[in-house]
Amino acid sequence: MDLLPPARAVFITGFMGTGKTTNGSRLAGSLRLPFVDTDDVVEDLAGRKIKDIFAEDGEECFRELETEALRKVLRGPRSVVATGGGAMTRPENVSLMKAAGPVICLEARAETIQHRTGRRCERPLLLTSSPLDTIRELLAARAEAYAQADFRVSTDHGERETILREMRSALGSDARGCLLVQPFTRVPVCAGNGEYGVHLAPDALRSLGRLCPPLVAGTRCAVVTNETVGRLFGERVLESLHAVGWEPRLATIPDGEAHKTLKTVSMLYDALVDAGVDAGGAVFALGGGVVGDVAGFVAATYRRGIRFAQLPTTLLAQVDASVGGKVAVDHPKGKNLIGAFYQPSAVVVDTGTLVTLPERELRCGLAEVIKHAIIADVALFEYLEENLHEFVALDCLAVRYVVARNCQIKAHFVEQDPFDRGVRAALNYGHTIGHALERAAGDWQLHHGEAVAVGIAAEARVALELGLCDAETVHRQIALLEQAGLPTYVPGIDADAAWTALQQDKKIAAGALRLPLVPRIGAVEVRERVAPETLLGALTMACGEPHGS
Amino acid sequence: MDLLPPARAVFITGFMGTGKTTNGSRLAGSLRLPFVDTDDVVEDLAGRKIKDIFAEDGEECFRELETEALRKVLRGPRSVVATGGGAMTRPENVSLMKAAGPVICLEARAETIQHRTGRRCERPLLLTSSPLDTIRELLAARAEAYAQADFRVSTDHGERETILREMRSALGSDARGCLLVQPFTRVPVCAGNGEYGVHLAPDALRSLGRLCPPLVAGTRCAVVTNETVGRLFGERVLESLHAVGWEPRLATIPDGEAHKTLKTVSMLYDALVDAGVDAGGAVFALGGGVVGDVAGFVAATYRRGIRFAQLPTTLLAQVDASVGGKVAVDHPKGKNLIGAFYQPSAVVVDTGTLVTLPERELRCGLAEVIKHAIIADVALFEYLEENLHEFVALDCLAVRYVVARNCQIKAHFVEQDPFDRGVRAALNYGHTIGHALERAAGDWQLHHGEAVAVGIAAEARVALELGLCDAETVHRQIALLEQAGLPTYVPGIDADAAWTALQQDKKIAAGALRLPLVPRIGAVEVRERVAPETLLGALTMACGEPHGS
Repeated sequence: MDLLPPARAVFITGFMGTGKTTNGSRLAGSLRLPFVDTDDVVEDLAGRKIKDIFAEDGEECFRELETEALRKVLRGPRSVVATGGGAMTRPENVSLMKAAGPVICLEARAETIQHRTGRRCERPLLLTSSPLDTIRELLAARAEAYAQADFRVSTDHGERETILREMRSALGSDARGCLLVQPFTRVPVCAGNGEYGVHLAPDALRSLGRLCPPLVAGTRCAVVTNETVGRLFGERVLESLHAVGWEPRLATIPDGEAHKTLKTVSMLYDALVDAGVDAGGAVFALGGGVVGDVAGFVAATYRRGIRFAQLPTTLLAQVDASVGGKVAVDHPKGKNLIGAFYQPSAVVVDTGTLVTLPERELRCGLAEVIKHAIIADVALFEYLEENLHEFVALDCLAVRYVVARNCQIKAHFVEQDPFDRGVRAALNYGHTIGHALERAAGDWQLHHGEAVAVGIAAEARVALELGLCDAETVHRQIALLEQAGLPTYVPGIDADAAWTALQQDKKIAAGALRLPLVPRIGAVEVRERVAPETLLGALTMACGEPHGS
Repeated sequence: MDLLPPARAVFITGFMGTGKTTNGSRLAGSLRLPFVDTDDVVEDLAGRKIKDIFAEDGEECFRELETEALRKVLRGPRSVVATGGGAMTRPENVSLMKAAGPVICLEARAETIQHRTGRRCERPLLLTSSPLDTIRELLAARAEAYAQADFRVSTDHGERETILREMRSALGSDARGCLLVQPFTRVPVCAGNGEYGVHLAPDALRSLGRLCPPLVAGTRCAVVTNETVGRLFGERVLESLHAVGWEPRLATIPDGEAHKTLKTVSMLYDALVDAGVDAGGAVFALGGGVVGDVAGFVAATYRRGIRFAQLPTTLLAQVDASVGGKVAVDHPKGKNLIGAFYQPSAVVVDTGTLVTLPERELRCGLAEVIKHAIIADVALFEYLEENLHEFVALDCLAVRYVVARNCQIKAHFVEQDPFDRGVRAALNYGHTIGHALERAAGDWQLHHGEAVAVGIAAEARVALELGLCDAETVHRQIALLEQAGLPTYVPGIDADAAWTALQQDKKIAAGALRLPLVPRIGAVEVRERVAPETLLGALTMACGEPHGS
């Protein structure tokens, strides 16, 4: 099942006296979301009490105001929203509500409603001589409207705790609601000999031990990290592992890509031997792509392979590198030249670590997120078009959805092609030109994600030139990259140097470049034998000044 | 299907005039074996012509001599043996012949026989007035005897080439005969993701290119070898690879176990980069266990794994290390500490390389051969008891059978347990005590195979002490090791030092040693929780002087 974006709101509706306010605010409290009653918003908008609106301007005027209130609420933060009892009688409201999230209708028998409402006298609709009959008539009249709700919860006999549990359980069974109530999102990955899980939560590192317990108490393991990440999260990881019986030892490698070498690997072998890690032990890779690659290679080759968990702390590692089993270090003559395919036993993604990332690094990770959406998921792409601000603000549900969905997309390609000999080439979208620009510019000038963003824009234009897609498809890709604050042109870079770097790719020299291209958002195809001139044109344009697009 | 030992002889029988001598000697020529006619041996034994034996002492005397001749021939070298036309009428002869190898009966019609024999007059049985009737009567009388042959080939119309082809094809369909006619023995190994073949032949390296062609002509590959082996076989390997379109480069590492290090691995990465080996390339490991382990590890980790062929040139590597996918280098703190499970794409065993081995190294390899026979194949064990001299003399069919059968046994364990977590522990028979002795003695004093031989003898005694086997089972193991010139006691070694070395094994410290033990030749079981005292006793005895066994 594909993950869906988190609900923008959870709606509590139902007849008066069914307990919308009481139960809605309890639900909001348990979800740590604000609680909003549209009746309050209506009164705010109108500047008078609802009974006065009914009395002075009639029900139709109230319904207009109620719809306006709903729209206003949905522009605000994610919340639990109690509506008026008649809100669902208006098709416009139903559309607004169902597009934003699950709708829970609270129910009660007419007698219960009369008993509960009898104590109050402000309900305009019940100011009649025979309230029970009126209630019954209204309930019958609204039956069809309430039937449009996603879930029904009876409040007749239930204790408050029971009602709360039933509402939460309804949310947990809803594709958009489950993010609100489930502590972890688990994405299964089937690759190589077995399945492993990607476990995501905002504070997942504190649950690490419970997710990855040792087979035997007292087993030694190593937590490989770098200086920066170790300072931030080392203690909490050691504590969590220690609590379940591991005997963990921290092994810290220097920060930076320059240390992704066989020398660092050799140092880690020594550290593992010193720590007494044996064949039953494990390596936990706590950090970004470099830590994951180096520690993964060590785990793959120490005692012919020991267990290994990825604990990615950067967006790039969370959405890309931690899933797929590629582990490697660099050789002076080539990146990732020494490596293996070695699947982790688990990936634990603590989305809370992203708050520690420099903004530029977060935006760089977004380049791969946008790439995944472009090649594989139009719904994710549209979600990003609408909600990128939520993600950039690190709204925890938005982050959990986006990261989990990206892991799912990556897993989809990895499962089909565990050794990267076929369809996995699609993941290279934007990377052919991107790599060339990165090499021509030098890492200090253009980070990997920025180079990929420019590469995506350029390769989108290649697809347009080859008649593979329309201008709108190109425009939407570029617009989303720009919305993410990523470059789509790099006027400072020498196109000749980039072209030379690109030609060093042997496949191009042989005139047989395979390029993944995007015919429409959410799809990708690998184009054989793309002519070098076409690429040169796109590359030159990418290095020029942007002109009206 | 299990491999069977090579035939000791191929028998050509059939009625007179069916062409036994002509066709038998042609078959012998094509198999490069000597040709023997039992009639000639009979005349040698008797010192007179066959017709005189018949005339003077009668047929029964001739038949006695013929049986004696058969026995004599079978004590000599492997050969193609033509028998007299009536040899198969004696059950004793049939038993002798069928135990030694396939029996081909040549056939012809009575008229053909009369035509062919008419020209000669020395056939005692045909000195009658009506030869055609006599032929028919004799053919009928012998029909039952000839029916015991394994194959029948008609010589009525056939050209000589056709008859030869039919005889060879008959041999090729026979489990013992096929070694005589098939240029290669192929043992399939199913492990990990696919199947690969072990190809054995006396001159297999010259066929290497044909067995392992490149996917694309001009592909670069590296032949990793050491100084000694490179000098002996480097040129022929390069030539064979070059001939089929590889662009091979020799990468030589220093001789010896001391260079099985990450440093050598790093040097080989550089060599592969310099040679331009890319992801479509390959590594050929030409040498013994060290070269196979180091080159295999490089192949497993260069560009996340490239194709890799084992070309083992020592007996130990041929019968053990080259099959199973274990590749590794040593760490100062532990042997094989850095490694992987990485199956080769092919194993090419040139049994002819064994002639270059020092005798001590050949005998050391025999320790693992005998171990395989003890734990898994009573027929191989009995073959070795009878024919060890043939193997030690490097008779090419004996070597091909023994090496191939050993690969098959090793493959059997590897296939069931590719990651060495279960039944593969049985292969460790003799190695627990063997390793302890090896570490206590130092490699210069006791080679691995010698230590294993002493270990087998000691662990056989452990099984006896635990009441798991009888004394005869122990005695046969020790006798075969001694026949192979391997030690079964090592009085020079300090038992205390060996015991300390053995205790360093954590499993022993925890009092939970798992030891593979042999209840009878051809079987093995892993015994849990063998008491340390039992082992100490066996170890102390192994380090003492041999006493009457």
